[in-house]
Amino acid sequence: MAKWEEIAAEKRKELAASISDKYKVPETKLPAASVLDVSGVPAMLLPKEVIDITEQTGTELVAAIAAGKYTSVEVTTAFIKRAVLAHQLLNIFTEFFPDLALARAQELDDYYKSSGGKTVGPLHGLPISLKDQFRVKGIDACMGYVSWIGRIAEENSTIVDLLLAAGAVFFVKTNIPTSLMAAETRNCVYGQTVNAYNRTLAPGGSSGGEGAIVSMKGAPIGIGTDIGGSIRIPSSFSGVYGIRPSHGRFPYLKVSNSLEYNEAVVSVDGPLAGSLDDLVLFSKALLSEAPWKHDPRCIALPYTDYELPSRPLVFAIEATDGIVTPHPPVLRAIKTVADALQKAGHEVFEFKSYKPEVGTELLIRAWTVDGGANIQGDLDASGEPGIPDIMPFVKGFKSLTMPELFTFNKDKLEYKTEFLEYMNAARSPSGKPIDAWIRPVGVPASVPAGQLKLRYLGYTGLLNLLDYTSVVVPVLKADPAIDLAAPAPGSGADREVEQKSWEDYVPEDFKNGPVGVQIIGGRLEEERMLAIAEVVDKALKA
Amino acid sequence: MAKWEEIAAEKRKELAASISDKYKVPETKLPAASVLDVSGVPAMLLPKEVIDITEQTGTELVAAIAAGKYTSVEVTTAFIKRAVLAHQLLNIFTEFFPDLALARAQELDDYYKSSGGKTVGPLHGLPISLKDQFRVKGIDACMGYVSWIGRIAEENSTIVDLLLAAGAVFFVKTNIPTSLMAAETRNCVYGQTVNAYNRTLAPGGSSGGEGAIVSMKGAPIGIGTDIGGSIRIPSSFSGVYGIRPSHGRFPYLKVSNSLEYNEAVVSVDGPLAGSLDDLVLFSKALLSEAPWKHDPRCIALPYTDYELPSRPLVFAIEATDGIVTPHPPVLRAIKTVADALQKAGHEVFEFKSYKPEVGTELLIRAWTVDGGANIQGDLDASGEPGIPDIMPFVKGFKSLTMPELFTFNKDKLEYKTEFLEYMNAARSPSGKPIDAWIRPVGVPASVPAGQLKLRYLGYTGLLNLLDYTSVVVPVLKADPAIDLAAPAPGSGADREVEQKSWEDYVPEDFKNGPVGVQIIGGRLEEERMLAIAEVVDKALKA
Repeated sequence: MAKWEEIAAEKRKELAASISDKYKVPETKLPAASVLDVSGVPAMLLPKEVIDITEQTGTELVAAIAAGKYTSVEVTTAFIKRAVLAHQLLNIFTEFFPDLALARAQELDDYYKSSGGKTVGPLHGLPISLKDQFRVKGIDACMGYVSWIGRIAEENSTIVDLLLAAGAVFFVKTNIPTSLMAAETRNCVYGQTVNAYNRTLAPGGSSGGEGAIVSMKGAPIGIGTDIGGSIRIPSSFSGVYGIRPSHGRFPYLKVSNSLEYNEAVVSVDGPLAGSLDDLVLFSKALLSEAPWKHDPRCIALPYTDYELPSRPLVFAIEATDGIVTPHPPVLRAIKTVADALQKAGHEVFEFKSYKPEVGTELLIRAWTVDGGANIQGDLDASGEPGIPDIMPFVKGFKSLTMPELFTFNKDKLEYKTEFLEYMNAARSPSGKPIDAWIRPVGVPASVPAGQLKLRYLGYTGLLNLLDYTSVVVPVLKADPAIDLAAPAPGSGADREVEQKSWEDYVPEDFKNGPVGVQIIGGRLEEERMLAIAEVVDKALKA
Repeated sequence: MAKWEEIAAEKRKELAASISDKYKVPETKLPAASVLDVSGVPAMLLPKEVIDITEQTGTELVAAIAAGKYTSVEVTTAFIKRAVLAHQLLNIFTEFFPDLALARAQELDDYYKSSGGKTVGPLHGLPISLKDQFRVKGIDACMGYVSWIGRIAEENSTIVDLLLAAGAVFFVKTNIPTSLMAAETRNCVYGQTVNAYNRTLAPGGSSGGEGAIVSMKGAPIGIGTDIGGSIRIPSSFSGVYGIRPSHGRFPYLKVSNSLEYNEAVVSVDGPLAGSLDDLVLFSKALLSEAPWKHDPRCIALPYTDYELPSRPLVFAIEATDGIVTPHPPVLRAIKTVADALQKAGHEVFEFKSYKPEVGTELLIRAWTVDGGANIQGDLDASGEPGIPDIMPFVKGFKSLTMPELFTFNKDKLEYKTEFLEYMNAARSPSGKPIDAWIRPVGVPASVPAGQLKLRYLGYTGLLNLLDYTSVVVPVLKADPAIDLAAPAPGSGADREVEQKSWEDYVPEDFKNGPVGVQIIGGRLEEERMLAIAEVVDKALKA
């Protein structure tokens, strides 16, 4: 056993030891490994009082706690139990700290009692899950790097502090891929996290632990980060809601990261949740704490409810970006959304975005400006191999010189400018400007875990380069009986990737994989896009 | 004569030829070179109708044009004449295009007439001056680089387009230092621009042509840019008002620049004007054109009038940053402001900003990330020597590697974060938070032209690194009878620069040099700081 393997094994042992038997379901009661869809397991194995609480949205729960119906200790205990079961089934946790959480919940309950029913803020008593990147004082934040094990946080991430001020309770951190630069969730420390709807599938990534825990209702809300799709892909693959806000809306200060100070493209953080209401609850609560007073990158924009126009909305539907045609389940999801919106009286029309191949190529240049040196250094520090998923971004590029970086910045600005003018000029067949742009989250539904089958990140990545707001709404699950195999359409400009991707598409392998879509608006349009996502969600549920 | 000298001489000849005698005051009537203060010359040499118009603010003029009192052709003609005289006295112009301007003015007048008195926008008919960087289709934009001569603009800068939409008239572009990286205004193409109040002094820089033309009322408003003080220094040195907005407020798209795609610190553009009213007029008009629909770096923040609290305001007064103590005229200006505010009932207190030496050093690192390669390349392309003022930023540094840039970005973010927390925590002696922070614009009043006597840019530069809003308000003029010479105080941490700066201070050499102060607020607080600048201005005039 190599030294790094010993260190990783020790870390896993510590994690296992942190999960008391009192929270676990006995191994013997768990479904066999051959049971793939475990989304219904909590309802079968957990006590009624746990299910009663955890089936509610965060929005319902904060109201119930504020009304004195539940204590925070009750709610926190319920989510701890459900999250532990989710972890037993899917391998989600990186850090688990129920005692801290329950002490915090008790404090909130004491305050509520002693103040005669006051809450400390809009999230009073609500448990929220954290991607491993987020720092909680006293807790490790190794982010799946063996060499980072033991980096005990000396202070909270700013977002953690602000959410605490709003009343949140933190109890768990969740799994990611090594370095975060993959839409997967596996690393040499914690191994592979899998999907609640089919345990041979991945939950997406890099915020895959958050996708998994939220999909299992082990937390009503989780916080992820996104530099290429890392909130949106796990939202889609895990069948939950998520928002990638624009840079400067939510605080990212004191959050661990790889490529942390690469400003060529920047990561943002945002929530994943079981409902749109909870995305709004989270965004409103966080912005009520004025993050711009703490993170100099944040813009002083309080949350302002967006009032939808009463007219029908105009949706630009981009089923394929013309580079890699999505798989049948994803094409069906887009059609489902378009049909539902049309039925609800909105205008939908087929849309092509502006030179997406240019934007996607720019994003990859942005990720790799240092030629992979930063990530390689953190791998080398322990000797761990990392995961193959990230190697294209570690090995394939040369570090830029400063003049090359200036050229990149020029190309980026020109593309963003052209894109903006294109969107401004775009009109529907009836001559109206676009209210929202809808496109897939990726080529496949959730992919088989650990098999490198997410070959193309352009559907999400383009929005990172543009820094546009994107909300993911779940639509359907892949069904081998409907989403039949077919030869690659051959219409995608990247024939090779399209060919390989469609060869991957063996319907049974993708069975039950959730599919969401992106509802996209401009920069810093979080409120507007959440309001429009609500329209889409209602149309789908109608 | 070297080839570059021939090219430069040819360019100067073309400029001279563009200025028709009909706009000039005959050479014989001009004051002798020994007359230093020429600020009163226009009133002596220009016809009454020209003076009547040009002594008014832009705000008054747009109202008068909208009311049919003047035509745009009348107003434009008046400013053309006054600007030409200013140029004859101070050497201001780089490009002069009165025919284009008058045709444009005629169009606006025709529209006004044919529409029954409608205006095209809030700037209808108002002439505005442009720093040479701004592109006007069909006009050269050589920016003082010999090698750039003949770069005829194929399109307008976005800000030019938006101001045209708001009704502006453009007629002239003005001088800058080679590469813009100096607080001076001289280059190998157009030579030295000098100061209206003392022609042995500089008008500041890099937007010194704008400072000079606005100080002479050759334009009611001019547009400059600022990456270290280049709006604020010429505002102060030329005795006018100016605002450095935060990045993302005003559009900078399609503006010529050196180090154009260096994102380590970014240049912003903003107005200089003869009155605060005109800074507001300009900002409101520009933002009413929604620059965020065109420049992807702009934030969708319309202009929102700021309502001042009725309580006394709290001013943090930083007379010296503790690194280089300002000269006597500047110390007197700060004291004048503090006394005036106190007399007006506001709270003022002595303030020290947070580690300004760290911020200033970071700014210099940001300017020089490419080791001067960009500027050197544009000098080498013609063989011109450039100007000695910029050489510290061209010769003294090595280009950063990508990991070094990441380290710089880390240091920058940490400093900005610490600064923000420091400002949040700061309290006046009576326990109140700060409404505005007042500090000098630099060590000296306007300095002797072309003598490299602006040795320290920390007073303005710090705000570029922090990206804070800063409004300059003129306060007084250096007076050898009051502002006596003295030995260097020796309290500045940079003893050597302080010593040399104070050796520079021969009172007679600085005579009549204007001094303004900076009124500083947080990021993207343009409206609030303009409102507070109004309070300061009124207190000074009381």
